[in-house]
Amino acid sequence: MFSYQNLHQFTQHIFQSIGCSAEDAKLATDVLLSADLRGVDSHGVARLSGYVRLWEAGRINAAPDVRVVHETPSTAVVDGDWGLGLVVAPKAMAVAIQKAEQVGTGWVSVRNSNHYGIAGYHAMQALSHDMIGLAMTNASPLVAPTHATERLLGTNPIAVAIPAQEQPPFVADFATTTAANGKLEILQRKNLEAPTGWIQDAQGNDSVNPHELKAGGALLPLGGETGSHKGYCLGSIVDIFSAVLSGANYGPWVPPFVSFLPLPANPVGEGIGHFFGAMRVDAFRPAAEFKAHMDNWITTFRNAKTKAGQEAVLIPGDPERLTEQERRTTGIPLLEPVIKDLESLGQRFGVSLS
Amino acid sequence: MFSYQNLHQFTQHIFQSIGCSAEDAKLATDVLLSADLRGVDSHGVARLSGYVRLWEAGRINAAPDVRVVHETPSTAVVDGDWGLGLVVAPKAMAVAIQKAEQVGTGWVSVRNSNHYGIAGYHAMQALSHDMIGLAMTNASPLVAPTHATERLLGTNPIAVAIPAQEQPPFVADFATTTAANGKLEILQRKNLEAPTGWIQDAQGNDSVNPHELKAGGALLPLGGETGSHKGYCLGSIVDIFSAVLSGANYGPWVPPFVSFLPLPANPVGEGIGHFFGAMRVDAFRPAAEFKAHMDNWITTFRNAKTKAGQEAVLIPGDPERLTEQERRTTGIPLLEPVIKDLESLGQRFGVSLS
Repeated sequence: MFSYQNLHQFTQHIFQSIGCSAEDAKLATDVLLSADLRGVDSHGVARLSGYVRLWEAGRINAAPDVRVVHETPSTAVVDGDWGLGLVVAPKAMAVAIQKAEQVGTGWVSVRNSNHYGIAGYHAMQALSHDMIGLAMTNASPLVAPTHATERLLGTNPIAVAIPAQEQPPFVADFATTTAANGKLEILQRKNLEAPTGWIQDAQGNDSVNPHELKAGGALLPLGGETGSHKGYCLGSIVDIFSAVLSGANYGPWVPPFVSFLPLPANPVGEGIGHFFGAMRVDAFRPAAEFKAHMDNWITTFRNAKTKAGQEAVLIPGDPERLTEQERRTTGIPLLEPVIKDLESLGQRFGVSLS
Repeated sequence: MFSYQNLHQFTQHIFQSIGCSAEDAKLATDVLLSADLRGVDSHGVARLSGYVRLWEAGRINAAPDVRVVHETPSTAVVDGDWGLGLVVAPKAMAVAIQKAEQVGTGWVSVRNSNHYGIAGYHAMQALSHDMIGLAMTNASPLVAPTHATERLLGTNPIAVAIPAQEQPPFVADFATTTAANGKLEILQRKNLEAPTGWIQDAQGNDSVNPHELKAGGALLPLGGETGSHKGYCLGSIVDIFSAVLSGANYGPWVPPFVSFLPLPANPVGEGIGHFFGAMRVDAFRPAAEFKAHMDNWITTFRNAKTKAGQEAVLIPGDPERLTEQERRTTGIPLLEPVIKDLESLGQRFGVSLS
């Protein structure tokens, strides 16, 4: 177990070592470690060395000039200047929140960015402003559209955070595939088979091999046999809002997160893309009224009768919130390969893991 | 086969007979029959007698005063005054489009409405303005959240329409369940079993009986065994945006479409709710640039390599557009029970079906 405080100091030190300002390094660390706190282990500190390798490959600008390049009262396009997505994204979300303060809602599409950690973190920034937050991002192509054998979409997550009054907020955060790539990475590390319906092989047949993507296989859109066209729709909407609106790369042109893969030839835009939204609740009805009804919505669903063997109906965000409560006190567990990876980063940058 | 023109005259006559103005009756007919044209037979003229029965039960106001009751520069709440959703929805979408013209985007949540036909029709209203359109609605509770045996959500569809230049637009329109209720209704009429994964029985076990809902069963959220929590998230977001934001009924309180079921006791809002969005493409980047990239996006996906036995990768909206092209010339096929139902409506209101 590693304490959040120790991991935070360690990670912030690494980000400063590659050239981030103290402020940006703290922000990037807050975003990255929110994944470890919330139990999304695939998207947290386990990826720290991946970001460092991208920086080494010259694919990340540690001191970006993140700026609005186009705007209307309710919209903006933000250019991330090849910065860490972990830094670009919260700055873009802040623009969405500002716009919402002024005209009710704010919508920001981002180009020239990079992986931004967990979508839920960004959507949740709206909550303290009594706003609904929305975050999407495209990602490197690992997903085959319905009927295809080619990989044209990323796992393209959608997060929506909605405030309540007495109840904790509603926080949905999910990949538009049957399984996030991070879950597959965990199976790879543990050498376990994947459930049917997650993956297809290079010819489009079902596969349970978690390493299938290396042999030309693909992740599958949410929905499975009878409904994958709906997951394909959702992933496509995320791709278009994040990248075609902003001028980032889309579809097969989205740059890979791993530095050992080459950048796609003939890019159609700049970097990867994100999309953020903020809606002031009181742009629709008084905030207290809205939040009281959200409390009623949440308790109605949480108290629904369950199937035999199921303890309770969960509200989106419940499992992550409980994990965070626990891990803030008992610490964050890391797999052995992740610890080794971090220790070698620590040696290189002169900082100790614990 | 029935010609679109004949069905249009017939349907408009019925709507005028129950008290709609000529203008509203035309609008309601345009919306309703767009489902028949696009091949969504469950949501079209087959439901005309259902709307008439709702009117007879005093649950629809044929001459509503549809009005904005709250607004900011980019948002509005519209009160549908118990009107036909087929009339309320296009008027609310027009407000979203107006707002987008002024400040880049427009977002409208609607209360006090009723079923609004196919979501895609409303989203597509944005296209001719070079805007992205978005439409959602909640609906009577037929869907059990993950782990639950109670029905707390509707099939809560999401539609997103995105303009291109040379290519036809991208139009996604899908229920957030494995199957729309309309598809189940078709199986009921044809007396066929449903595929596994669509339905559960009153105890939460898998069922293939298309009549299971009458015995306390439920439709299942999109995603199936490994991913239904994601469909549950999506359906919940639609419910909250459509009804908790506007002050309509949500969750188990959403009024039924069928007039023989009583209205839920202790309503938490007024009528059913919708949510609409419009985003001006040039609020993000020049429209010509965006649309040229959409052409590239669409052709890239359409030309992707396919699995053996699959002709092509479809772009969302392709099947419906092709059906519409065909049916505008060859006519609209109707099932025998639907024809009978329409003929009896025709006799009652003094209009002939063909």
